[in-house]
Amino acid sequence: MTGSLIIAGLGPGSDALITPEVQDALAQATDIVGYIPYVARIAERPGLTLHPSDNRVEIDRSRHALQMAAEGRRVVVVSSGDPGVFAMASAVFEALEAGPEAWRALDIRVLPGITAMLAAAAAAGAPLGHDFCAINLSDNLKPWALIEKRLRLAAAADFAMAFYNPRSASRPVGFARALEVLREACGDARPVLFARNVTRPDQTLRIVPLSACAPEMADMRTLVIVGNSATRIIDTPRGPILYTPRSA
Amino acid sequence: MTGSLIIAGLGPGSDALITPEVQDALAQATDIVGYIPYVARIAERPGLTLHPSDNRVEIDRSRHALQMAAEGRRVVVVSSGDPGVFAMASAVFEALEAGPEAWRALDIRVLPGITAMLAAAAAAGAPLGHDFCAINLSDNLKPWALIEKRLRLAAAADFAMAFYNPRSASRPVGFARALEVLREACGDARPVLFARNVTRPDQTLRIVPLSACAPEMADMRTLVIVGNSATRIIDTPRGPILYTPRSA
Repeated sequence: MTGSLIIAGLGPGSDALITPEVQDALAQATDIVGYIPYVARIAERPGLTLHPSDNRVEIDRSRHALQMAAEGRRVVVVSSGDPGVFAMASAVFEALEAGPEAWRALDIRVLPGITAMLAAAAAAGAPLGHDFCAINLSDNLKPWALIEKRLRLAAAADFAMAFYNPRSASRPVGFARALEVLREACGDARPVLFARNVTRPDQTLRIVPLSACAPEMADMRTLVIVGNSATRIIDTPRGPILYTPRSA
Repeated sequence: MTGSLIIAGLGPGSDALITPEVQDALAQATDIVGYIPYVARIAERPGLTLHPSDNRVEIDRSRHALQMAAEGRRVVVVSSGDPGVFAMASAVFEALEAGPEAWRALDIRVLPGITAMLAAAAAAGAPLGHDFCAINLSDNLKPWALIEKRLRLAAAADFAMAFYNPRSASRPVGFARALEVLREACGDARPVLFARNVTRPDQTLRIVPLSACAPEMADMRTLVIVGNSATRIIDTPRGPILYTPRSA
């Protein structure tokens, strides 16, 4: 038996957003590895072993997955969203690079998924309709100064911005500081989308100007999108549509 | 009959990357509207009318789709990749905003898809594994000076960068200029991915340092990703893996 390691994206929440390619990989897996809530999305079946693990153990989880693949298992590491966007793919490659030379001969593939910013943008309209950037606001693995530098340069470039991991119980302060930086750089009127639990039954969308943003509007289940200078709102009887024109 | 308009992403090429949500919308449509090669991906069936149109008529196409929805049809506008990323969603909202007030009461939804940069990144490893930006290099709808400004600021921010529409027969010069700007700002060694026809049977991937990049390596079917300062290559017997660590 030849082992393999697939790093697969489950999309933001709804099963209707899991690609057939990923469904097929899950159906053929012998072992599923991932953070507890993501592994909980996988149906149990004979011949499949689930290996849920806690948050913040990404490198241990990656080594475990690589080791099982080296032993001949068909391992799928599941990520929320897209595995290559602030998710497990980079962690697996960090573990691969630091690990035994033999691991490099493994069949390793990344299968893309719908990352949260695409689903959040679609739910609100098309705020990422022109040039944009994606920033992880967590300073667990990088200094806050680098985040703030990127915010200022992204504002100067007039990118729309998508923020992942905006605020957590252990990092209550950073997002408040990010809002201050953005208000200085972009003014009070810039529209901001808070998309929580996107594509899930309890999805909520809020569109507010920067002046009305409060840090408490975001948590780890919230994807935040800040428009660029051309981002507009169309008022409709069904609610506001937030979009960035193609010429921006 | 109540009309509706769905703007749906078909993903980068492989049908295995079309979400079940989009498949369902296509199955229920009465009319499919889009650029010729994207509409060509939809199977004909009784009760379905295909409306292929040429490139660069996005606003006309959008008006046509909105008008048919207003007449009670179930219209799906198909985009390659994700409709909200350099694709049809913003064009439809521009047409909506400029159109008759009655259109605003329509049931309009955007269904996300796998955009090319996610598929290209997955095929090569995880080069977008940390903060990154996406830039449309076409200056059809914006001045070249704005593109160049964004390139310089993105380099200063040390974002990985994904470039859409890097080079076409009618715009042969811009990408060469972009490579010059990047070599000045990022140095010669920075790794660059050229992913052509990604997820299609004739997919090609090339990873080269900035110093070896030539304008001819890109065309309109190529997605280009430039790593950030931490982006690395792992050499393996199966080929190079390009990735950006989580701490970058």
